[in-house]
Amino acid sequence: MKSELKERALRVGLPREAGAAAKVSRRAADRLRAGHLWVYRSDVDEVYPAAGETGIETGAIVSVLDGRGFPLGSAIYSDASQIALRVVSEKTALTRAEYLEDVRERVAAAVALRREVAPEAFHLNADTSADDACRLIFSEADGLPGIVADKYSGLVVLQLLTQGTAQDDVREVLRDVLAEELELETIVERPDGRVRELEKLELPPAGALFAKNAEAPVLETVFTINGMKFHFNAEAGQKTGAFLDQRLNYAAAAKYARGRALDVCTYQGGFALHMAQVCDEVTGVDASRSALQVADRNLQLNPQLKATVEWIEADAFELLREFEAAGERFDTIVLDPPAFAKTKRAAEGAMRGYKELNLRAMKMLRPGGTLVTCSCSHHVPLAEFVEAVGSAASDAKRRVQVMETRGAAPDHPSVMTLPETDYLKCLICRVG
Amino acid sequence: MKSELKERALRVGLPREAGAAAKVSRRAADRLRAGHLWVYRSDVDEVYPAAGETGIETGAIVSVLDGRGFPLGSAIYSDASQIALRVVSEKTALTRAEYLEDVRERVAAAVALRREVAPEAFHLNADTSADDACRLIFSEADGLPGIVADKYSGLVVLQLLTQGTAQDDVREVLRDVLAEELELETIVERPDGRVRELEKLELPPAGALFAKNAEAPVLETVFTINGMKFHFNAEAGQKTGAFLDQRLNYAAAAKYARGRALDVCTYQGGFALHMAQVCDEVTGVDASRSALQVADRNLQLNPQLKATVEWIEADAFELLREFEAAGERFDTIVLDPPAFAKTKRAAEGAMRGYKELNLRAMKMLRPGGTLVTCSCSHHVPLAEFVEAVGSAASDAKRRVQVMETRGAAPDHPSVMTLPETDYLKCLICRVG
Repeated sequence: MKSELKERALRVGLPREAGAAAKVSRRAADRLRAGHLWVYRSDVDEVYPAAGETGIETGAIVSVLDGRGFPLGSAIYSDASQIALRVVSEKTALTRAEYLEDVRERVAAAVALRREVAPEAFHLNADTSADDACRLIFSEADGLPGIVADKYSGLVVLQLLTQGTAQDDVREVLRDVLAEELELETIVERPDGRVRELEKLELPPAGALFAKNAEAPVLETVFTINGMKFHFNAEAGQKTGAFLDQRLNYAAAAKYARGRALDVCTYQGGFALHMAQVCDEVTGVDASRSALQVADRNLQLNPQLKATVEWIEADAFELLREFEAAGERFDTIVLDPPAFAKTKRAAEGAMRGYKELNLRAMKMLRPGGTLVTCSCSHHVPLAEFVEAVGSAASDAKRRVQVMETRGAAPDHPSVMTLPETDYLKCLICRVG
Repeated sequence: MKSELKERALRVGLPREAGAAAKVSRRAADRLRAGHLWVYRSDVDEVYPAAGETGIETGAIVSVLDGRGFPLGSAIYSDASQIALRVVSEKTALTRAEYLEDVRERVAAAVALRREVAPEAFHLNADTSADDACRLIFSEADGLPGIVADKYSGLVVLQLLTQGTAQDDVREVLRDVLAEELELETIVERPDGRVRELEKLELPPAGALFAKNAEAPVLETVFTINGMKFHFNAEAGQKTGAFLDQRLNYAAAAKYARGRALDVCTYQGGFALHMAQVCDEVTGVDASRSALQVADRNLQLNPQLKATVEWIEADAFELLREFEAAGERFDTIVLDPPAFAKTKRAAEGAMRGYKELNLRAMKMLRPGGTLVTCSCSHHVPLAEFVEAVGSAASDAKRRVQVMETRGAAPDHPSVMTLPETDYLKCLICRVG
């Protein structure tokens, strides 16, 4: 049965020496034809090792075939992730060398795109008060599944997030192209712990991937967004670093913020410090003490700020409950919690979480106050998030005007045909 | 039966002298409790005239009751529109005088909000090159159902869109508050033909509602948005005037536009002229000759523009078909068609229309070109619009990156719990 199917596949589209292939369900084939780029494990019907081999190599590039053996392109194969196939090319039987050539071209295109849509991030060395940070490569959105790169001043942080990309040949291409395209101090790879576990990835090689000064690679820097300064340390932090996707939302929030402001899940102070430019008092809350220590160092970096700023180490839900009970009142509240829904199944609980946070925040807002409420859950679409916040508004008996519905900055594009890549939602609301 | 129900209603919440009331279905009551503000005619179970009367007065303020007679607030009643009740207050048995007092307060609040979120629109008399246009009042979003007002420099255009608001007492309140709050030349009322028909409204009184110079009311002006000048004539135009909701999207499009640009459904040249600041060639297309005549006058108002601009009078679908057949190619295309889906039922046809327009546009875009694609259909939510454009991308076999997902400018807020008020969608895409 297995070999018969393979023969058919080879017959309709693939040469004998084509290498490994995976046959996917009709549902998956239809989705890919409509422009989706992922195949879940449950939709992979069979896999065919390359001729003469007994299994598919970890992270191999495989041809994707529909149930009748017709080719649908090539994909990175993972034997661990729930997403078994990530399409990298419309071409079938893509060789590793061809894939690396695609990576080379697409990295250059991704950087060129950022120079156009986020020119403010490329002012390095010109003026130390100018902006110099953005996302350079964003996985599927740049045709580079499993590859993410952020630029913090002269330091580039790389994430290789799949079995097919966490490999030395990909590292070399990235190092070469990025070092050629940009004036850099250092390129370092930072594995994401959770993804490493899901994808069963090995730890990346120790040390910097590239360093202008090989003897003393720069692993710590100060970067600038919206004219505000922030620390970045490539060896610390719960995520790869700052949340650059919120970059323009920080600036937008500062346009509406005033009076006494609360920033819930402030992390390293992104929203809090931007609001401190215009508010009288800002309280930043986070459960992570080490994040707040960086937030406080960031505060010191920006002596021009107008507000009194304080940091509170606390769980967001507990603190909001306490503040509400104590009758605290604010003019501006930001809610920027971590993704509640890391899986589709968790989405229902996430909705309850969003509703509770937003309800408590609305109750503490003075009439006419501003609520900036965010969700970065991939599995909670905008319409559902609006519903959760609307349900909070109705329970709180507050009239809520939505002034702006915002997403990630344009250096974090999404794929039109892969709604999962449009994950960040930021509503700026006037609460009457 | 009828009088028994009425008695019950009066018993639970309404005084005897409470005036007219409407009892709504459980579904409608649940929606109102969740923060929705409309009741469709099919959800009105019964209406009760005020004591001593035989019917409900056209445009009366009525109390809204659930099936058990519990009060849900007060609403403007329409005997013609599909939306029979528009909630104006949480208070039941609202008198006309109380309603007018609410209108007075809310108009002042609406103007105050614009001064905060669109301060750039209030530079009148300071600097003639400064911006001076925005929406002042936006119906439900300002707690003022059936009332819309736009400011074009010193000219305010008012729309009274329901039986309850197209009345002289409302006109007087609006005239008094607006003339007090703003430095105005003129306030004129412009009925929307389609709404007038649906709501069976009489023509408003002739002449200006307010004129600083009563003998020569200013009915024509030049206004400025994003530093660009546009004509406005209160006595002409298919809509009330310019599309101020697109104000910030015009500026955003100009950040991405380049080379040869096409603006489909350009109306009076909004996107086209903004793009002409940065492009080499701009073609603006519209089916309305009179709109294009204004577009051309607008072109003359902005002598600083870089591009060669031409206007073509044509149907959007036909022209795109012709251009595609002729092998025309563009670097930037804007699609800003009128609302295809004016009703829920028309939404399916609208999706086909959006797909066709976007498919043809994508086929004519050079690799790496920019597509700015808009929808102002209330009945097509963002997710469905993205699906239609995504389906076009997949048929065109183009990789499409969504750089920005934008909505109306913040002087056009929406109501969090009334998704119908979040109508404008504008995607800025890179088409690979």
